[in-house]
Amino acid sequence: MADFDPVSLLRKKRDGHTHAAGEIRALIQHHMSGEVTDYQMSAWLMAAFLNGLGVREMLELTDAMLHSGRVLQHARVSRPKVDKHSTGGVGDKISICLAPLVASCGVAVPMISGRGLGHTGGTLDKLEAIPGFNVALSIKAFQRQLERLGVAMIGQTPELAPADRRLYALRDVTGTVESIPLIVASILSKKLAEGIDALVLDVKVGRGAFMKDEAASRRLARALIRVGTRAGKRVSALLTNMDTPLGFTIGNALETREALEVLHDAGPADVRSLTLALGAEMLLAASPGTTRKQAERELEQALSSGRALELMARMVAAQGGDARCVEDPKRLPRARARVAVRADRTGFVNDVDPYALAQVALALGAGRRRADQTIDPSAGIELTARRGDRVERGEPLCHLHATSRKRAEALVEQSERAFRIGARPKPAKLILARMH
Amino acid sequence: MADFDPVSLLRKKRDGHTHAAGEIRALIQHHMSGEVTDYQMSAWLMAAFLNGLGVREMLELTDAMLHSGRVLQHARVSRPKVDKHSTGGVGDKISICLAPLVASCGVAVPMISGRGLGHTGGTLDKLEAIPGFNVALSIKAFQRQLERLGVAMIGQTPELAPADRRLYALRDVTGTVESIPLIVASILSKKLAEGIDALVLDVKVGRGAFMKDEAASRRLARALIRVGTRAGKRVSALLTNMDTPLGFTIGNALETREALEVLHDAGPADVRSLTLALGAEMLLAASPGTTRKQAERELEQALSSGRALELMARMVAAQGGDARCVEDPKRLPRARARVAVRADRTGFVNDVDPYALAQVALALGAGRRRADQTIDPSAGIELTARRGDRVERGEPLCHLHATSRKRAEALVEQSERAFRIGARPKPAKLILARMH
Repeated sequence: MADFDPVSLLRKKRDGHTHAAGEIRALIQHHMSGEVTDYQMSAWLMAAFLNGLGVREMLELTDAMLHSGRVLQHARVSRPKVDKHSTGGVGDKISICLAPLVASCGVAVPMISGRGLGHTGGTLDKLEAIPGFNVALSIKAFQRQLERLGVAMIGQTPELAPADRRLYALRDVTGTVESIPLIVASILSKKLAEGIDALVLDVKVGRGAFMKDEAASRRLARALIRVGTRAGKRVSALLTNMDTPLGFTIGNALETREALEVLHDAGPADVRSLTLALGAEMLLAASPGTTRKQAERELEQALSSGRALELMARMVAAQGGDARCVEDPKRLPRARARVAVRADRTGFVNDVDPYALAQVALALGAGRRRADQTIDPSAGIELTARRGDRVERGEPLCHLHATSRKRAEALVEQSERAFRIGARPKPAKLILARMH
Repeated sequence: MADFDPVSLLRKKRDGHTHAAGEIRALIQHHMSGEVTDYQMSAWLMAAFLNGLGVREMLELTDAMLHSGRVLQHARVSRPKVDKHSTGGVGDKISICLAPLVASCGVAVPMISGRGLGHTGGTLDKLEAIPGFNVALSIKAFQRQLERLGVAMIGQTPELAPADRRLYALRDVTGTVESIPLIVASILSKKLAEGIDALVLDVKVGRGAFMKDEAASRRLARALIRVGTRAGKRVSALLTNMDTPLGFTIGNALETREALEVLHDAGPADVRSLTLALGAEMLLAASPGTTRKQAERELEQALSSGRALELMARMVAAQGGDARCVEDPKRLPRARARVAVRADRTGFVNDVDPYALAQVALALGAGRRRADQTIDPSAGIELTARRGDRVERGEPLCHLHATSRKRAEALVEQSERAFRIGARPKPAKLILARMH
């Protein structure tokens, strides 16, 4: 390490060459120790963005970021440990019902999530819509709860993958976010730090997703699977449609309510079916002997018996939340004002633009544009008509939930433009592909 | 400027788009004021390195860096003001004799130069081999001397093109030096700040040059001419051979001595002929009515009459240097030890590797690998045989000048390897092309 020369490594990636084993690790380690400056790292990030990283390079970057901090081991948890990661969408509340559901089927789910930023929501914000719910458990408390309940849902902690946090902060301000290799290393380093045996990915495709086209989403899924597999984990992915919002709700308390409905063995068909599909992937990853049919049957039984709901209530209570909300989701915070957005013609809703509605939700106070903004848990959008539905002129398409009528009314026109009504219905597929 | 968003500009260059007018200027200005961080700037530099800049973008970058500081105007100098810039080579001492020669023909030469780094020497280090010579004049003193003598040779000052200095410092540590657009803007912003009307470029090609191949050198020359012309200056370039050292000497006092020999109307043929060729370009640029023949005749007359030498003596005296060295170059510092490198066979010298000899000169103490190193003005290499010369086995090829025999002897073998001796001579051309 005496002769470590970061400039020669920057030149190497700049010129499109592949790093030799150990070079990326050295870059990350020296960045963390301060010998590689932020401006050198950001030049490397831009070079990596433009010239790419191979599978071996992604693996080394993942591993270097993973080992920049603690890697959890759950010695006293004998069950297989599986987590799910979604690349983020509009109305994606799946984690909230999925984690307790899968845990109620004998799989340990040590889930560490993020907050919402820009047009995509965050699981932590949704969980915090439950009064008192604490996402900031210590690592010790997180592990104890995992031992006791088989499920815990918390936010990122400084002990895990700190190099990813430093790198992401740089990427955010240097235009180097949208890079498949850098995304792969960021996702996997954080997830592998949880101490999991297997990972199921929900890779979104469409206007409401981070990746707008299917080819790019497939490349991302493929890279995540390859690198995760080479890191010794079982990894599979579902490619799912994010060209229309998931479920009927966008906004934190509204989405948590919808996820709780699934645990009540109800809820919208798409939310329920994606939860079951991802849950089956997780059970299959946990015990490869099982068939998909068996896995699905077990998940449905956990829902119909109330076992999943009960575990959710125990988790909420364990993390300081008001568990009565689980039994009675109407207890979740509600907005003071509720304003309808109405159809201006009769016909079939054949487009609901998730990105456009996410912008409305942001303006209603449901999200943040910058990491330091606060959000209103009760704000959001509740759809009454979705893609494929028939509406009469004057019927509501959705309701805007906000702190005041005025704030909601100002967004009615913008909301209307998110809907397209035509003469014939245009159905859309939810799960586009399974990759492993 | 309220809405200035550097990340969107980084994304733009990252995605290979062309910046709109004003965007590069805003980046540079905000970098200087601290609103754009070094890590953002270095990400942009890497994106510009990899995706390039068009002529308009280079022009804006040049202009933004130029106007980050003072732009000199020499209101009291009525003569045309012309400077020369060389992209740097091994044994390139042309500036030392060229500036007073051209100034003695009625052209003002406000020359601001740099120091040597790595394998290329620097004019300032060579001038400082003259005891007492002060390259750190104030802008005011620089301008007064230009008014009085028509020539002054100094080092870069903090007032001129400070943005280039900041950018170069970043490029140096982020692997973004070898980029034609960034080089063009760096050279031109510094040169235009001198307050010149025209610029003549000596773009080197070959192993001893920054650009190793002719195609890249042509691209660099072409870009410099285009951008310089669009900035309103007369610009022309000579593409010259740097596949063999220029002249017989490498090392500061040795090179200054050789340049002074040219002013004594002697000196090696190649140094003399390149000086005359570049001088003619400068005179033509200064008075476009002149013919090349007239220009050459005037330069030769300035040498044979001693007019150029006399002006050199006045400049040296004006800048605090020992003017007796000009009359008698043997007064320049000499090394204590002088060790011969001998031919191991009889034949024609058909290769002298300038880069390899520059490495020897560095090791002898004539140069610096890092900007903070000090140099030995007397150290260097004096060739006795050059490309095309016939040598007998045992005859000296060159002499190494150093503080001790031991230091020089340790480099004899390495020096020998820089020469190749064959059965037939292989002549090489010095001036490869003229571009304008």
